[in-house]
Amino acid sequence: MAEKLRQAHDDVIAANQQDMRAAEAQGADPAFCKRLLITEKIFAYMIDRLEQAARLPDPLGIVLEGHVEPSGLEVSRVSVPLGVIGIIYEARPNVTTDAAAVALKSGNAVILRGGSEAWRTNAALVKLMQAAIVEHGLPEAAVQMPASTDRQIVRELLRMDRYVDVIIPRGGKSLIKAVTEKSRIPVIKHYDGICHLYLAPDADTAMATALTVNSKCQRVEVCNALETLLVDQAAAERLLPEIGRALTAAGVEIRGCPRCRRILPGCKAAVAADWGAEYLDAILAIKVVDDLEAAIKHINRYGSGHTDGIVTGSLTSARRFQAMVDSASVLVNASTRLSGGGDYGMGAVVGISTGRLHARGPVGPRELTTYQWQVYGNGHLRQ
Amino acid sequence: MAEKLRQAHDDVIAANQQDMRAAEAQGADPAFCKRLLITEKIFAYMIDRLEQAARLPDPLGIVLEGHVEPSGLEVSRVSVPLGVIGIIYEARPNVTTDAAAVALKSGNAVILRGGSEAWRTNAALVKLMQAAIVEHGLPEAAVQMPASTDRQIVRELLRMDRYVDVIIPRGGKSLIKAVTEKSRIPVIKHYDGICHLYLAPDADTAMATALTVNSKCQRVEVCNALETLLVDQAAAERLLPEIGRALTAAGVEIRGCPRCRRILPGCKAAVAADWGAEYLDAILAIKVVDDLEAAIKHINRYGSGHTDGIVTGSLTSARRFQAMVDSASVLVNASTRLSGGGDYGMGAVVGISTGRLHARGPVGPRELTTYQWQVYGNGHLRQ
Repeated sequence: MAEKLRQAHDDVIAANQQDMRAAEAQGADPAFCKRLLITEKIFAYMIDRLEQAARLPDPLGIVLEGHVEPSGLEVSRVSVPLGVIGIIYEARPNVTTDAAAVALKSGNAVILRGGSEAWRTNAALVKLMQAAIVEHGLPEAAVQMPASTDRQIVRELLRMDRYVDVIIPRGGKSLIKAVTEKSRIPVIKHYDGICHLYLAPDADTAMATALTVNSKCQRVEVCNALETLLVDQAAAERLLPEIGRALTAAGVEIRGCPRCRRILPGCKAAVAADWGAEYLDAILAIKVVDDLEAAIKHINRYGSGHTDGIVTGSLTSARRFQAMVDSASVLVNASTRLSGGGDYGMGAVVGISTGRLHARGPVGPRELTTYQWQVYGNGHLRQ
Repeated sequence: MAEKLRQAHDDVIAANQQDMRAAEAQGADPAFCKRLLITEKIFAYMIDRLEQAARLPDPLGIVLEGHVEPSGLEVSRVSVPLGVIGIIYEARPNVTTDAAAVALKSGNAVILRGGSEAWRTNAALVKLMQAAIVEHGLPEAAVQMPASTDRQIVRELLRMDRYVDVIIPRGGKSLIKAVTEKSRIPVIKHYDGICHLYLAPDADTAMATALTVNSKCQRVEVCNALETLLVDQAAAERLLPEIGRALTAAGVEIRGCPRCRRILPGCKAAVAADWGAEYLDAILAIKVVDDLEAAIKHINRYGSGHTDGIVTGSLTSARRFQAMVDSASVLVNASTRLSGGGDYGMGAVVGISTGRLHARGPVGPRELTTYQWQVYGNGHLRQ
């Protein structure tokens, strides 16, 4: 698929240019057009992701466990494909190749329903991926897209629980909500990323500052960007002035609680809605908390269970934080931006699940498998 | 909980007798009353299941995997409780203690919504289980039942996706269907068990007969009982006369395809609806198939992906069958009645999932856990 994509460079770019012109003619906003556009950098990234997926170990046929019962019955559990995966997404065309790669890597068939504005681009991509899989003996239908942009097709797809095993919506909250409500098929979904860092009393000033700035600023519009900073009251006077300077220098607007504003009088006052806000922007809420327990309580109340971290040198605090914060990823002394497939060594992922069932956190090829119980007897009966 | 149940014997039996009298007064049918009744044997079984669950290894805090990234970031995935589990079930009161045991074993809270006819029994059971957990420092609310039999409470429960993490319906198909359609919460469900055995050309006559009879007759009303027997045409004339005699002796009605009826002329003719029927009764459909591939095709078309088996001495046939039959449990030379938690060494289970996501096959304590990504850095930033 990577090879075919490289060969089809001009066709894909031409199709994408057609989509771009149509979107611009319809007055699509610049942010939307930016997501739709395949730049040379994105094109190279798409190839890279396909090659990366190819290099990953095969997640199928893994004996997850196995034992012999006292009766002599041999029981094992072996990973197998999940089945047919429906991906419903919006403008970004790189999702088309990313998702197909992850789904195929684990032996699944995939139905790709991208945004109607990217239809020509996606059709070009699906065509070349089909050519690649057919050349290697797989059925063409293992990678497919609907015949038209008709939204009725999506509604019908979501009711085909006999044929489709899981739906993965990728996009804004309204898309995810609509898909979840209408689907009869199980959904692996990705809601809010309301990520917190808690700076413990002993947090090193330089490390706390660097982790806060990196977590907030490395990329603001993504789900694992920091949205609320919790600072222990025992460290607030030491840490906040330096962190405030660094954030302001990076162009971040601070919205502080009363205790934060006593130390950083220049910052805006946080209102109730700031706790639990997913800004996806250069804004950070800061709250001074009484202690570790108050931080844990705040995170479990206002967080979204996506990614939360602590900065500390205390073993007790780190362990208590990990035990009590009920989130998919809990980090100690690391940037929230490191939560996700790539930095966890998973290679390619199709999203980050905020659900608790089946897959929690990054969804890579392994998360798109299920298992089969394989049992060997020698005429074993039930008594 | 087992100890408290033993102590509360008289209270539980008295409450159950009240439920029984009320059900009989309302003219409930005998099969229903039989499911509702706690006999001394069932009472002992309930205690045994609680003790069995207590003896199982703790499924929490298991490091499922872990590694160090080239950057030095330490990444691991650790099992944690799923959260709050809602069980919606019908008459059998032993589900109350079984389900609570499995859910609690993996650190979950459980909401038990049993049938209204068993309300007094369930209230007595929940009361003693609450007393037991409170004595051991757990919150009383970790095991609870709704305040009344009002069905509106169930409808509201199914919409509480913010608070309840998974719903497990146990009962007839109509209950499961209704719950699945109304629930906003993910459902682990258990639909049909349309189980097959395929007898390969080389199947040993004695083993094939014993496995067929045990799979069909050991208990007819359960999900892993045999419903369709597939016999290879190369072995039909050798195997069917003996199998037919054994089944008839066991009181089983045979519904055969034309080729089967040429060998067993006395049996009833199968109609189209017999392929894929879940009799849950002393009835067996028998079809003579051309070969292994025809058997696989039949099972994947008419089966329910629950449990299917092959009887053979051929390594190639066994491996091909396991690779191609897309079912939760695939057995070689073993009774279909052996698929399930107990015979897989899982101890206590809360059901057998026919879904593909999260849990497939028996649902024990481990299947009621999820995981958390735990990450340690030393000031690691995203570049």
